[in-house]
Amino acid sequence: MNTGDLPVIALTTGEPAGIGPELAVMLACCSPLSARVVAVGDPALLAERAAAIGHDIRLHVLAPNDTPPAPEAGVLPVWPVALRAPSVPGRLDTSNAAYVLETLNRAVEACRAGAAAAMVTAPLHKGVIIEAGHGDFRGHTEYLRDACGVDDVVMMLATDSALHARHADWPAGHALRVALATTHLPLRDVADAVTAPRLTRMLSILDAELRQRFGLPSPRILVCGLNPHAGEDGHLGHEERDIIEPALEALREQGLSLTGPLPADTLFTPRHLMEADAVLAMYHDQGLPVLKYAGFGRAANITLGLPLVRTSVDHGTALDLAGRGAADPGSLRTAVALAIQMVHGGASSPQ
Amino acid sequence: MNTGDLPVIALTTGEPAGIGPELAVMLACCSPLSARVVAVGDPALLAERAAAIGHDIRLHVLAPNDTPPAPEAGVLPVWPVALRAPSVPGRLDTSNAAYVLETLNRAVEACRAGAAAAMVTAPLHKGVIIEAGHGDFRGHTEYLRDACGVDDVVMMLATDSALHARHADWPAGHALRVALATTHLPLRDVADAVTAPRLTRMLSILDAELRQRFGLPSPRILVCGLNPHAGEDGHLGHEERDIIEPALEALREQGLSLTGPLPADTLFTPRHLMEADAVLAMYHDQGLPVLKYAGFGRAANITLGLPLVRTSVDHGTALDLAGRGAADPGSLRTAVALAIQMVHGGASSPQ
Repeated sequence: MNTGDLPVIALTTGEPAGIGPELAVMLACCSPLSARVVAVGDPALLAERAAAIGHDIRLHVLAPNDTPPAPEAGVLPVWPVALRAPSVPGRLDTSNAAYVLETLNRAVEACRAGAAAAMVTAPLHKGVIIEAGHGDFRGHTEYLRDACGVDDVVMMLATDSALHARHADWPAGHALRVALATTHLPLRDVADAVTAPRLTRMLSILDAELRQRFGLPSPRILVCGLNPHAGEDGHLGHEERDIIEPALEALREQGLSLTGPLPADTLFTPRHLMEADAVLAMYHDQGLPVLKYAGFGRAANITLGLPLVRTSVDHGTALDLAGRGAADPGSLRTAVALAIQMVHGGASSPQ
Repeated sequence: MNTGDLPVIALTTGEPAGIGPELAVMLACCSPLSARVVAVGDPALLAERAAAIGHDIRLHVLAPNDTPPAPEAGVLPVWPVALRAPSVPGRLDTSNAAYVLETLNRAVEACRAGAAAAMVTAPLHKGVIIEAGHGDFRGHTEYLRDACGVDDVVMMLATDSALHARHADWPAGHALRVALATTHLPLRDVADAVTAPRLTRMLSILDAELRQRFGLPSPRILVCGLNPHAGEDGHLGHEERDIIEPALEALREQGLSLTGPLPADTLFTPRHLMEADAVLAMYHDQGLPVLKYAGFGRAANITLGLPLVRTSVDHGTALDLAGRGAADPGSLRTAVALAIQMVHGGASSPQ
């Protein structure tokens, strides 16, 4: 394969006081993935963190949106963005909130201009961005939704495709994918947020992206109930009967392959998961504990419904680990691998 | 060891049209556990199901509460209870609701009289018992609570102690135990049900039982938040700050070892679980999907807070499988093994 054909992936290095910069360095030191990964961040910061964790790396500073060279272990191409203030590991500084947002804007622009095929994000710190005056900042996902001018996105977490569950009867290549119907809401607000229009929008995006980005011609989606035991025929809640079942039925008539609503505690077992491509959980803590248990260190976050491919690590800034080289780059590597897969429409790319 | 010293465990065979009777037969055909397991049910039903699934078994029918002999593969001691009507696999019959409840009453009496050291329950069918006129029947757990005259019980699910998670850095003998602060409630009622008095009662029972029944002198309990990200400093809900944290702090002053409230999606990872003996989830679908994913076929349900030891399978009656010998006795075997462990106060018994 001509390595010049490899897709360009813009990697935003996230909160400078966190583990993002050193994860970018670690990634560049690993055996190269089948992509030209270019860091979006401050070159001096990256050099400093590489030295701090004892990684010998060569930065290749490019002009913004210039095409990076073929991947090479130990070389990290950079689209430079300047820090607003020097950054100390573990110490948040509101001055650099504008820097973090600029790296996101640059990556979005690169994707929209065709200079990058996808963007992957290292963790940012929501609190410091809010404190810096962006009171309405809710996180990467919502920021990118607004930056791209779309109404709805779907948050999905996925493990890499080599997840080997401990169940001997699972296929070795099985990946677990969990999308959320609602995301960051207080638990008491969840039931009212699960509406038929919302389920219709979320499932339509999920289905379309599984077809387009994961190469699944007829994606099989399992849908959780809202209540324990999926409402147990109305004994434990009526939303399954009144809201979820009618919404699923209408979508089935449009050709979607949907199973459910199923009790969440029996859905995540081999009998169901082996027959499915993705799960739609009704809310955050119904779906993500099992995903992170199963895929710890090998899971990534994907935003579906954007006019670009975006994946992310599934963890936070880990300020307490920053600058020590103790962070695990597994989730970042998974995020890049999934972005590559999605760029190719689901086809496995050569490693 | 003198097998005459082995504890007696009363196994209620549950809904006669379900898989319970044949699971009891399968258990008796396996290599014996370190207990004298005695089935509580109809001998003719057990003989019929043994024949249906092609298991050669000898029933040893005893007088109620008579001491069963030492365990022997292929022999199933029975404390007889008569079916009210013949039972066909897969076909529910309200006539037999009284039979199912009688098996439970017999097992409770045996435990309270000292004829059994513990009871293990095969699945019953809640709907048919309600339909038979017991409109207030809510399940095994609540029925046993009332039968024993206690105010509060805690539902806990546990895997057997040989759970090998796929994470290579987990200790081989690690068991996952998840208790619930609330159980079978519609999701929209959960937030209001999580009160400080409830948390205090549930954690006190959990702590006491882990000491008494699991041999843990200072049990380490992880507590989930109610909201995603455990409320994220109040941005995603106030119950952590207003209710959960003060309740935990008061219990810590009484000597309980409690960590949390933690975000549920990071709690179930090795970093936290390896340092803990049990988890308290705030509600059903926050805790049980991961438990059943991790321990599928090797998990059991335990009722804490009763004046007797009671464990149960973690699955339902599986009416569609009944009479075919296709059911998996793994959860029943785990339930019996856990009951044995609890009878011995947490000490492993010789196998």
